[in-house]
Amino acid sequence: MNDYVLDETLHNMLIEASNYTKNGVVADYIPALGEANRDILSIAIYRGQDDCIAAGNMDEKFTLQSISKVITLAIALMDHGEEYVFSKVGMEPTGDPFNSIAKLETNVPSKPLNPMINAGALAVTNMIKGNSTEEKLGRILSLIHEMTNNSTITICERVAKSELETAFLNRSLCYFMKQHGVIKGEVEALLDIYTKHCAIEVACPDLAKLGYVIANDGINPTTKKQVIPPHIAQILKTFMVTCGMYNSSGEFAIRVGIPAKSGVSGGIMGSVPHGMGIGIYGPALDERGNSIAGMKLLESLSSKFKLSIF
Amino acid sequence: MNDYVLDETLHNMLIEASNYTKNGVVADYIPALGEANRDILSIAIYRGQDDCIAAGNMDEKFTLQSISKVITLAIALMDHGEEYVFSKVGMEPTGDPFNSIAKLETNVPSKPLNPMINAGALAVTNMIKGNSTEEKLGRILSLIHEMTNNSTITICERVAKSELETAFLNRSLCYFMKQHGVIKGEVEALLDIYTKHCAIEVACPDLAKLGYVIANDGINPTTKKQVIPPHIAQILKTFMVTCGMYNSSGEFAIRVGIPAKSGVSGGIMGSVPHGMGIGIYGPALDERGNSIAGMKLLESLSSKFKLSIF
Amino acid sequence: MNDYVLDETLHNMLIEASNYTKNGVVADYIPALGEANRDILSIAIYRGQDDCIAAGNMDEKFTLQSISKVITLAIALMDHGEEYVFSKVGMEPTGDPFNSIAKLETNVPSKPLNPMINAGALAVTNMIKGNSTEEKLGRILSLIHEMTNNSTITICERVAKSELETAFLNRSLCYFMKQHGVIKGEVEALLDIYTKHCAIEVACPDLAKLGYVIANDGINPTTKKQVIPPHIAQILKTFMVTCGMYNSSGEFAIRVGIPAKSGVSGGIMGSVPHGMGIGIYGPALDERGNSIAGMKLLESLSSKFKLSIF
Amino acid sequence: MNDYVLDETLHNMLIEASNYTKNGVVADYIPALGEANRDILSIAIYRGQDDCIAAGNMDEKFTLQSISKVITLAIALMDHGEEYVFSKVGMEPTGDPFNSIAKLETNVPSKPLNPMINAGALAVTNMIKGNSTEEKLGRILSLIHEMTNNSTITICERVAKSELETAFLNRSLCYFMKQHGVIKGEVEALLDIYTKHCAIEVACPDLAKLGYVIANDGINPTTKKQVIPPHIAQILKTFMVTCGMYNSSGEFAIRVGIPAKSGVSGGIMGSVPHGMGIGIYGPALDERGNSIAGMKLLESLSSKFKLSIF
Repeated sequence: MNDYVLDETLHNMLIEASNYTKNGVVADYIPALGEANRDILSIAIYRGQDDCIAAGNMDEKFTLQSISKVITLAIALMDHGEEYVFSKVGMEPTGDPFNSIAKLETNVPSKPLNPMINAGALAVTNMIKGNSTEEKLGRILSLIHEMTNNSTITICERVAKSELETAFLNRSLCYFMKQHGVIKGEVEALLDIYTKHCAIEVACPDLAKLGYVIANDGINPTTKKQVIPPHIAQILKTFMVTCGMYNSSGEFAIRVGIPAKSGVSGGIMGSVPHGMGIGIYGPALDERGNSIAGMKLLESLSSKFKLSIF
Repeated sequence: MNDYVLDETLHNMLIEASNYTKNGVVADYIPALGEANRDILSIAIYRGQDDCIAAGNMDEKFTLQSISKVITLAIALMDHGEEYVFSKVGMEPTGDPFNSIAKLETNVPSKPLNPMINAGALAVTNMIKGNSTEEKLGRILSLIHEMTNNSTITICERVAKSELETAFLNRSLCYFMKQHGVIKGEVEALLDIYTKHCAIEVACPDLAKLGYVIANDGINPTTKKQVIPPHIAQILKTFMVTCGMYNSSGEFAIRVGIPAKSGVSGGIMGSVPHGMGIGIYGPALDERGNSIAGMKLLESLSSKFKLSIF
Repeated sequence: MNDYVLDETLHNMLIEASNYTKNGVVADYIPALGEANRDILSIAIYRGQDDCIAAGNMDEKFTLQSISKVITLAIALMDHGEEYVFSKVGMEPTGDPFNSIAKLETNVPSKPLNPMINAGALAVTNMIKGNSTEEKLGRILSLIHEMTNNSTITICERVAKSELETAFLNRSLCYFMKQHGVIKGEVEALLDIYTKHCAIEVACPDLAKLGYVIANDGINPTTKKQVIPPHIAQILKTFMVTCGMYNSSGEFAIRVGIPAKSGVSGGIMGSVPHGMGIGIYGPALDERGNSIAGMKLLESLSSKFKLSIF
Repeated sequence: MNDYVLDETLHNMLIEASNYTKNGVVADYIPALGEANRDILSIAIYRGQDDCIAAGNMDEKFTLQSISKVITLAIALMDHGEEYVFSKVGMEPTGDPFNSIAKLETNVPSKPLNPMINAGALAVTNMIKGNSTEEKLGRILSLIHEMTNNSTITICERVAKSELETAFLNRSLCYFMKQHGVIKGEVEALLDIYTKHCAIEVACPDLAKLGYVIANDGINPTTKKQVIPPHIAQILKTFMVTCGMYNSSGEFAIRVGIPAKSGVSGGIMGSVPHGMGIGIYGPALDERGNSIAGMKLLESLSSKFKLSIF
């Protein structure tokens, strides 16, 4: 499966951005993520044709982590519609860290501010339809397979297990929301699904294709199938701008201006509206939890090819 | 076992205070507590002699709830000393509700403000020595037996079970503290002990005797045994003044001025330093969670007999 | 000066949106604003040609209020560059109300989260160069004249005076920031300039032209003059998306997807990147402070003409 | 005027406590306070007889600063009664710093938590009756003269001026409260009175006498005059315990157990209920704003002479 072509311009930009990896640190709060190589940086760009153009190592795999919040939001919106979903989870960006609990207490009634912070994403995962954990995870994986044409994508059980064992803060968020009726059912089952969809493992070309489908009205360019309704694809891109890059989202919108979602694994998925999809992997993170070199690479890319939506 | 004498003055004061029960509501967040009779009010006063003087029904039993926080703090201080205990839990009153989580997040490093709010009491319970849940609960009950000379006092399993099943907020607090290293070990085991010591069942004379021992340097007046060291008894009284009545503590200190600790069952334990111990039961609560008629009764008592420490 | 053409399609959309005015209330915290007619709704759209197309009453004038924050940010960025401005004021959206002070205290060092909330806008106004209040206000008006080709635009002294007299919350924000070194100089002089630029009076066609210049790289389509550098115009549009509609910005981005800035006078300025400029006036506000019918009108417009940037 | 006798026991305790001055710092946020000598420590104890017993330099004068909050609260309570005063200012301790503004925003309706934090004390000063600043300050000074029999006590204009010029945070608190109707009238006039009563200058024997009158039902032991009603004296002592030592009040109550109020000048006034009055001066402060050696001296004193009320 060789689905990319190395590109020299991209390679040169990547080399320059790679200088920033040394200023970042690999996430270590999930033990299994701490093993990543800080110096890595790779990128794939997908424009709906046969191959991605790429630079760096396309064989490196990494887990989606928070990037999966975009996918689960898509499913919850398809399952329940906007009105229901946004009755439980807000639409506003927040100045607080992604794992903060304070606003759940101060806002009455308790409601996570948006689906890109942990509290909101947990509430969204709680909405996904299915009779069992397996069925729910199966639906998440199916959508990813349909978006990427890559049915080998699966969950890294080792990362999921490592995360589940140390997910005390997410447990705290869940029980707080259970107290206030924001989530229903068993907390441990919810955390199991949540940590597993965070642990879905991809390579850069996969991420670029996920970004591409979201960028282009939810249509898979190969199969021509509408895998996500266009108005939902539009909602996803909006959240990616207002809340996609943790609490650097505002600064990223100014410096880069591309809808994007990052994860603490070091992945970034970009979706240029009606344009390219971008997949980046660079595990060295800045203090806000975004790939430090990945952000620089996106900044150069946006500047060079005038990709900002603003 | 007839350990009290009904008193007419006390009866008259109780009748007057009983008018306030209709302004309160019985706690219903723990289902088993919701079954209490709102109109009840009873009081026992112990002055170290053979019998309590009393008014109301001395056979009514109720669970300690938050009043048990005073007992577990005594044990943790005996087990570990002041320095260790207060390295994990603060000594300052808070303007926030007893079950608030926000300050655990905003204070860095995370540390419950005091041992009378839920977060602090959970951390204190986590410190109690013992090889098993049974041993730890046994030590708590033993101290209560030694303070009251009543070895029949035990846990109401029905209330404990009801509370454990719905203790989502306390779970949230525990997992938050576990994330930040404030508590160690299994959260469910900790919650089991915590809800069980909250569910220890007493009648007013028992509560008056607990209050008496704390009031009087930790010495049991019958056995003459030092069951709590005097400096720890002094610490307990201090917390009872600064944080004993949820976030009405400041107002209560002004209006009543007696070290006291309340529970959402409607119990209040009072300890006049080097004076009487008081046990009150009145399940109709005000909006802050204190027995509404019980507070009125204590206010009359303090005013009539000049019991304020200020 | 007849610079608009009434348009029937626009008129029909306006009639429909006007139904929502009755659900809103006119701002009354600035007494002079409270006199506005709740039922009004008008719109002008400018596409860089001779005339605006319009619906409603084009003679109604209203003050810019918070819309002026976009203009003063442009000037501060031209005066000092991005690096300096964003060292004093952040780039992140906030979940708090526009006039909130809490985050100024909890964030250390104290720094307003973005230039669209009052604290940030006051800090931005404090940066505008000039030897006197008159000179600073003159520079703000000059830029507006250059953007609109309308040199009759001036300050409504009556509204400015009304606002200055009751601006206690803004005074509180200023003194707090003065304590923390975020702003320099006399607070009363700063508030004088601030309330005056909030009280700059325009009609819908003016607002549409302001929006147009920002939408189109800062170039005045008539004079062809570059009145705002393109990268600054891009920054303005970005803030209009992430923080332009108070704490409905996230929801507005989803439902409408057009960079826009509202004011409590009921004005909304829209800037479709490299497309039209929009000026709306509808003084009936929703609870977040945005023109309730104006938002509905923008939603229809965006939907009908596919104007969302996402 | 020689109103004290040096005491050897007290001298020895003072020498030992003086070792802690080197761990503290002199307040420098009010420039004039920054000139104090960090190494000073002095104490006077008044027991209602002719002379104080003392150690250290009795000629050193210092300003009351926050200690004056106790005196102004007494006057406001005498002017308006408890019900009115506590409708505007709460009775609860707070876990926040004395100059915090956040709770004024999060508590709805806005109400300072207690009269010992700056917001509450400003609201209390705003209640003092009088037709002019001079009359109001005259009433404050008169009460102090009546409590101490020292009519030479007056305001240090230099400290008041220094404080007024830099009181940006207090201005911020005032304008916030003015917005919410907690205070009325001119903010600058209020701040003038406030900073002046903070700048009332005393020596240790004066402070001991102030503390004595509060300790002993409000009666001046020399003139036998009731200068403060007993129930108000009791309220003052209560606030001194729950909120008198900034946000070390809880810890101080445990370690010392004497009603006390400190100021950032380094003064501490102590009132042992129905016992001695204590005046301490030690300008080296700990990080919470309390005299570091003064607290140690009170701890020894309380321990040696069993002065804790608990």
